[in-house]
Amino acid sequence: MRAGHEVADGIVVQLAEGERDKMTMVVRNIENLLAALEPRCSIELVTHGAGLSAVTTGSPVSEEVLGLISRGVRVDACGNTMQRHGVARDRLLSGVSVVESGIAHLVVRQREGWAYVRP
Amino acid sequence: MRAGHEVADGIVVQLAEGERDKMTMVVRNIENLLAALEPRCSIELVTHGAGLSAVTTGSPVSEEVLGLISRGVRVDACGNTMQRHGVARDRLLSGVSVVESGIAHLVVRQREGWAYVRP
Amino acid sequence: MRAGHEVADGIVVQLAEGERDKMTMVVRNIENLLAALEPRCSIELVTHGAGLSAVTTGSPVSEEVLGLISRGVRVDACGNTMQRHGVARDRLLSGVSVVESGIAHLVVRQREGWAYVRP
Repeated sequence: MRAGHEVADGIVVQLAEGERDKMTMVVRNIENLLAALEPRCSIELVTHGAGLSAVTTGSPVSEEVLGLISRGVRVDACGNTMQRHGVARDRLLSGVSVVESGIAHLVVRQREGWAYVRP
Repeated sequence: MRAGHEVADGIVVQLAEGERDKMTMVVRNIENLLAALEPRCSIELVTHGAGLSAVTTGSPVSEEVLGLISRGVRVDACGNTMQRHGVARDRLLSGVSVVESGIAHLVVRQREGWAYVRP
Repeated sequence: MRAGHEVADGIVVQLAEGERDKMTMVVRNIENLLAALEPRCSIELVTHGAGLSAVTTGSPVSEEVLGLISRGVRVDACGNTMQRHGVARDRLLSGVSVVESGIAHLVVRQREGWAYVRP
């Protein structure tokens, strides 16, 4: 429906909470997106605030996050949150990217025509 | 602002929580949308995860949900959530539709140009 | 990516919760948006439901909200929420605007091409 539809097929998913139940729900939601929409889209998970703990060492969903990455999902950590919480890059799970600002990245992706969901 | 604006007048509303206060707030928000924007738009409520309990028998907001349906709001239950929780179709309130994946449906509607809100 | 991109540079941010931690997070998120994206965008904070308490007298984040306004962020209170809670306009912090329906305003902005985030 939008001009430039060819680039508008991505989905950016937000995780801002640190509760294990919420983390599990977000992972399951992304798995459902992959099953329902793949291979017609790019999926990116942006973690910020308390959600950062899903993508650092000791994450209760570390295996699930690594599984998403292996399936082509891009997983981001918010650089602002890392700085505020004193989390160094070597504490991120393998394959996790850093974006300067998680909240700004959610905006940038929408400007590129991506859909935004907050499970 | 978008090409294809004529189809871009819908609103998809998400409910993923099972607390009664949240359910009540979402129903009230949709009523406010109807009052402020009707008849210039389609409104669809997508329930998934714990939000499914708003649209099954015994829902604490069953009357309000039926009222929304009678006013033309489409109300969806997530098929993935139903399967995972063992909820059969005959436990859905009358008039509730089933979508394969609630989270994917939120994306599909956005791709069609609909606005997305998570009350 | 959208037609009419020149008007699509706004960001509408939602606050619907009354917990101080959430209010603080939302304010910080907007400050991060200003740092990352200014001056290329308009930012508007829409408070509704329990989030209204962030923008009324006695708000635990009153100074931060006034600071956002002084930096050009538009801050809105939901008229429906004000009416329901019996909050008069003179209880709003200085510079806060009133919109008829907060949830409808989130939709209107998206129709104008703005990005939507719910921190």
